[in-house]
Amino acid sequence: MENNVVCIQGLGFVGLAMATVVANAINEYNEPRYRVYGIDLPAKQKVIDKINNGELPFETEDNSFTLELKRAVFEYRNLIATTSEDYYSKAAMVIVDVHLTISKLDADDYSKYTLHSEPFKKAIHSLGKKINRDCLVLIETTVPPGFVRNVVFPILKDEFSRRGINTDPIVAHSYERVMPGKDYINSIRKFFRTYSGLTEGAADRAKEFLTSIIDTRNYPLRRELVPEASELAKVLENSYRAMNIAFIYEWTLFAEKMGINLFSVIEGIKNRTTHKNIMFPGLGVGGYCLTKDALLALWSNDSYYKSSFGFPFSTEALRINDRMPLHVVDLINEFSSIKGKSIIIMGVSYREDIGDTRFSPSEVLYKELISQGGNVMFHDPYIHCWSEIPTALFSDEIGDFDSVVFATRHKMYLSFSNDELFEITKNASLVVDANNILSDEKISFLQSRKIKVVGVGKGHINKKYYNE
Amino acid sequence: MENNVVCIQGLGFVGLAMATVVANAINEYNEPRYRVYGIDLPAKQKVIDKINNGELPFETEDNSFTLELKRAVFEYRNLIATTSEDYYSKAAMVIVDVHLTISKLDADDYSKYTLHSEPFKKAIHSLGKKINRDCLVLIETTVPPGFVRNVVFPILKDEFSRRGINTDPIVAHSYERVMPGKDYINSIRKFFRTYSGLTEGAADRAKEFLTSIIDTRNYPLRRELVPEASELAKVLENSYRAMNIAFIYEWTLFAEKMGINLFSVIEGIKNRTTHKNIMFPGLGVGGYCLTKDALLALWSNDSYYKSSFGFPFSTEALRINDRMPLHVVDLINEFSSIKGKSIIIMGVSYREDIGDTRFSPSEVLYKELISQGGNVMFHDPYIHCWSEIPTALFSDEIGDFDSVVFATRHKMYLSFSNDELFEITKNASLVVDANNILSDEKISFLQSRKIKVVGVGKGHINKKYYNE
Repeated sequence: MENNVVCIQGLGFVGLAMATVVANAINEYNEPRYRVYGIDLPAKQKVIDKINNGELPFETEDNSFTLELKRAVFEYRNLIATTSEDYYSKAAMVIVDVHLTISKLDADDYSKYTLHSEPFKKAIHSLGKKINRDCLVLIETTVPPGFVRNVVFPILKDEFSRRGINTDPIVAHSYERVMPGKDYINSIRKFFRTYSGLTEGAADRAKEFLTSIIDTRNYPLRRELVPEASELAKVLENSYRAMNIAFIYEWTLFAEKMGINLFSVIEGIKNRTTHKNIMFPGLGVGGYCLTKDALLALWSNDSYYKSSFGFPFSTEALRINDRMPLHVVDLINEFSSIKGKSIIIMGVSYREDIGDTRFSPSEVLYKELISQGGNVMFHDPYIHCWSEIPTALFSDEIGDFDSVVFATRHKMYLSFSNDELFEITKNASLVVDANNILSDEKISFLQSRKIKVVGVGKGHINKKYYNE
Repeated sequence: MENNVVCIQGLGFVGLAMATVVANAINEYNEPRYRVYGIDLPAKQKVIDKINNGELPFETEDNSFTLELKRAVFEYRNLIATTSEDYYSKAAMVIVDVHLTISKLDADDYSKYTLHSEPFKKAIHSLGKKINRDCLVLIETTVPPGFVRNVVFPILKDEFSRRGINTDPIVAHSYERVMPGKDYINSIRKFFRTYSGLTEGAADRAKEFLTSIIDTRNYPLRRELVPEASELAKVLENSYRAMNIAFIYEWTLFAEKMGINLFSVIEGIKNRTTHKNIMFPGLGVGGYCLTKDALLALWSNDSYYKSSFGFPFSTEALRINDRMPLHVVDLINEFSSIKGKSIIIMGVSYREDIGDTRFSPSEVLYKELISQGGNVMFHDPYIHCWSEIPTALFSDEIGDFDSVVFATRHKMYLSFSNDELFEITKNASLVVDANNILSDEKISFLQSRKIKVVGVGKGHINKKYYNE
């Protein structure tokens, strides 16, 4: 074991950002503090090669991410991506950023799920086989509450026993709040962290490490007494967000029927500090967290805690969010049948200004449009191939479609000029604004060209009395 | 009609505060700007007498409310409470603060309701019979969206026709956000307002008036184009709040099973600006707004707009909130049977530091405890008789009960010393903290005296591993 070696297990959207931040942490002599090994499975060899070339495997608007990665790889030379698990034996600390997924088994009944814990467990086993007895294992993966104590610890302990190590593994938990997008790196370095340990010693070591990579002067750490509490915090905060999005769905449909601009109404409500977190209407929810975390709590409850009430509210929120893109399909159908129509979806990423397609609502929209006989293409300035839907066709010549659906709030779309908008909608008879991308002025411009415009939460567009 | 006469119709928790604020508005010569008549029904004669004596008909921690009422009544002499509807004919403006209630018909099915609109309609008729054609009618009552256009306007127009007036009545809408409690008056004067009018002229007059009573420099007004939008804003913002409270309920039960202090977890989550509005666990929801406003939206949808989705989320939130106090009954039953036990509920008001019992969750708690054979008494520093439950017994000798339930976060309870706590719990074997009123230190003090303590959302109290 070497004092300054940190391994990051898993090089996805979180792990790679963590690896970059840890590698860029400096000591009081302005020297890099850690040697970082980012470790992933052989299937990720392409990603690993890119990282070692100082390149991100995806596009982002956060230039500092690219710069810091390059600095670590070429200047500090303290970040190496690899498939070799041997490095774990050198580590003073391993940060676990391996995915743990849960799938929904029934679109109408979200109490049915399968937790795919094998890859995660295998990853923990691989640590247990290699790490030094004094190595701190810091779990960042979002797990069902209770998992650190009931799954991670016993696996490590078991592997230790096989190796004749009779001390307890040192395990802590701290959840990240990484936000892919323009503040990608800062969403680690300049953000609040909650952490905990299975023992006080583990928590102390997690604290020391987090203090070395996070701006804790402005974003003080928060300690919870047991991992259960910090595990709970993560799934709770994501469920809260998902629920707030789901909540606005029924008000969106209502406002559309009323002929009201719900965005304006919500702007007014947000003035109240007690109401700042109310969400705007949109196409739906994507990403790895908000689409599933309530199910991790449900799994935990079913497996460990048995509260008879369960999570009816939080899981119903997931269900509503998952069906939200279908409302856009309804809006199109109200105008005309989808069969045989050419449709372009502007925006594949679930978030603005990043190429991140995980569980994007555009995928749900796409599948439904296809199933109704539409010819669907995509545009996205950040995405040129879509791993989830390899058959997806991307078009850069965007001017030849019956319908144009604005899906993602990319800067590029928000800043379209009337000329650009004209090009895109040249042959369109319908434009759908699914995410408040078009201003009222731009909508009027489209309408002046006899294009029908509809928008999620924008009931005012086609109402007369609103402009009397 | 006299230019400076404002009538307030309805002298409840909102109307009286409005009357006081309007009467205290001053012009550039430091003179009162308006003559205010507060008008209510003959059944409210006692309230009217109190007001004319410069006394509030309820207790509040907001001293400025009492002072400003006295100033208006005795110094400015520009505030008169009365039952006489003749004053409406003098008014340049009437502010409608009459209740509109909706009742739930089935505890398990919140899609069944009755809107009690007759008193409200009658009040509008009484205006239509008296007001000058140029009088502005400003609706502050929380109404189903569409009500101003579809109910208020036609009633006034109809009464105008009978009187041979052939101009349209002038109607505006602006919703208040009055918060009874220590910032009662400021919740009108120093708070954001949304307003709208059925015509531009009506909206302009509402704006002029609101600017004269509200600190619009710091709390700018927001105009919506149609009353539907501002009516929607009110029921939406209250539904948002109610939903956030309901959301935390299932996490509360889960955290209790886990043995986690959910308050601590939520403190950590609230660090995020995107999560500031997450709510803490508690006894439940009370008051006039949060317990019903989603049903007004449902009524509006059923009556006018027919969105097929309806409001499953927002109405389910109401249902969960209404049953929340029953969880406290479960907590007591886990300890021992309620039958024959003497129980004191500390706090009747649904909000801290005010004597406001409307739809208080303490009422639900009381009824369930009684139905299970408990002998229940109350304590509340602000309430000495409970109009909703005239049989309720209040005790000031609070030391002789088997169980003590802390229900309301009154300052008095939060600041109890150990000695005071000892007095109250002298003969108790169980203390329930239903609203995070007792600190961990006070809980330890009670436990040291062999009193069992349980708390809503406080799973850590009786868990060993949490303190290891």
